[in-house]
Amino acid sequence: MDKLVYSGKAKQMWTTDDDDILRVIYMDQATALNGKKKDQIAGKGKLNNQISTLIFEYLTKKGIKTHFIRKISDTEELVRKVNIVPLEMVTRNIAAGHFSTRFGIKEGLAFETSVEEMYFKSDELDDPFINESQAKALNVATHNDLSTMWAISREVNKLLTELFKTVGLQLVDFKLEFGKTKDGEIILADEFSPDNCRLWDLKNKQHMDKDVYRRNLGDLTSVYKEVLERLQKQLGGSVND
Amino acid sequence: MDKLVYSGKAKQMWTTDDDDILRVIYMDQATALNGKKKDQIAGKGKLNNQISTLIFEYLTKKGIKTHFIRKISDTEELVRKVNIVPLEMVTRNIAAGHFSTRFGIKEGLAFETSVEEMYFKSDELDDPFINESQAKALNVATHNDLSTMWAISREVNKLLTELFKTVGLQLVDFKLEFGKTKDGEIILADEFSPDNCRLWDLKNKQHMDKDVYRRNLGDLTSVYKEVLERLQKQLGGSVND
Ligand SMILES: Nc1ncnc2c1ncn2[C@@H]1O[C@H](COP(=O)(O)OP(=O)(O)O)[C@@H](O)[C@H]1O
Ligand SMILES: Nc1ncnc2c1ncn2[C@@H]1O[C@H](COP(=O)(O)OP(=O)(O)O)[C@@H](O)[C@H]1O
Ligand SMILES: [Mg+2]
Ligand SMILES: [Mg+2]
Repeated sequence: MDKLVYSGKAKQMWTTDDDDILRVIYMDQATALNGKKKDQIAGKGKLNNQISTLIFEYLTKKGIKTHFIRKISDTEELVRKVNIVPLEMVTRNIAAGHFSTRFGIKEGLAFETSVEEMYFKSDELDDPFINESQAKALNVATHNDLSTMWAISREVNKLLTELFKTVGLQLVDFKLEFGKTKDGEIILADEFSPDNCRLWDLKNKQHMDKDVYRRNLGDLTSVYKEVLERLQKQLGGSVND
Repeated sequence: MDKLVYSGKAKQMWTTDDDDILRVIYMDQATALNGKKKDQIAGKGKLNNQISTLIFEYLTKKGIKTHFIRKISDTEELVRKVNIVPLEMVTRNIAAGHFSTRFGIKEGLAFETSVEEMYFKSDELDDPFINESQAKALNVATHNDLSTMWAISREVNKLLTELFKTVGLQLVDFKLEFGKTKDGEIILADEFSPDNCRLWDLKNKQHMDKDVYRRNLGDLTSVYKEVLERLQKQLGGSVND
């Protein structure tokens, strides 16, 4: 019998017959402000599963090692089980969101070199911003772990900035999570969807991501659907569809 | 006529006849919570001037380049004018204060390697915590500037941890500020006093620093006086006294 390992803000993780494999269920739930704002949005789980599948398949094709195995239903996928490094690794190409409020910088400023930030994954502590020195002191990650994760993040940034540009979207910023396999290798985990990145329409600068929900700018699913359709047109359907 | 260049939370900076030299006045003012708590404390300015003078003279003797020229009265000193790098460079040997609340770590945990943090000096923005990548993106400091400031901070940490130990005090954490001379050299500036470090009595773990004020633990001046007297006994009086 499959067991529920973890029920998060957007996904559930279930065991499978294989100890090394988890089944992910994408839920129809949206949260913001670290869970303080929460809503059920029909169709969101399916859309995120579809988008994340396309992105992870694309990254895999380009040589990035990830946890992704395959999509098994509209809202489910199989992934390699890893020990998640409890850090959100954020890359920013353009000032927006937290960065803008924190430093009083107008949204839209393009950085010459991408800004890299980490947040300590802890719902209790409200995911505090953390630096490398603190992460090491708290034994959250070693210097080598951090180097590996940033090297992969930079590669992902290059690949996805390019990909999204071809579909008329600007990759403003994004959050990645990594985990260690039982052999100790660090691979990309979690998801990549408009829930954890910012995408601006290149033509009209419209928000094509979770800011639509955070800032009450309109209907989230129609925006996510637009992102999915543009990606499908560019990449073809998922090999799993 | 001397002109007031800057009136801060604890000091005033005045011009002198020499363009490259400023006169600092240590005020009898204590603040906490970025200025939200504020009080006049008679004698504090004199004590901080005395303590900072002893520390800066000690560091100079040990080869650290600083802005300090000399003490000219109970509450005044002369310093080289610099362009302050708007970063508070914090070094932590032991968990306390912000670090403890931010990461849910009990005060008192000793770090194997000191933790290093930066805060962006901006009263408007409430001195936000900032990382190296952000500081570079905001053109606050270059990679070289940061390396230099951390190298000096580490040297200061070694010297002062040792010094305070000889007078029965544990150097828990401290904040430094740096500035650039007109030749572009980075030197240590501002002050070093119990206002911007934590000192715990080695025997009874009592707070011998501004936490006495922040946490309403008793009389601040008697504690600062104790720190001064221990340093004087160890170092002899200031050459400026
Ligand atoms: N391959 C994996 N193995 C184990 N855990 C994973 C894997 N990929 C992601 N996770 C974790 O599973 C959870 C996914 O659920 P989610 O709703 O995103 O949680 P959260 O509310 O913590 O963001 C996250 O805690 C994430 O770190
Ligand atoms: N050598 C120096 N040259 C120019 N400015 C300095 C020098 N040393 C310190 N400063 C600046 O002078 C001010 C000292 O006043 P203070 O009361 O500490 O200000 P604050 O409220 O900003 O902490 C600080 O802004 C500090 O950065
Ligand atoms: Mg998540
Ligand atoms: Mg100050």
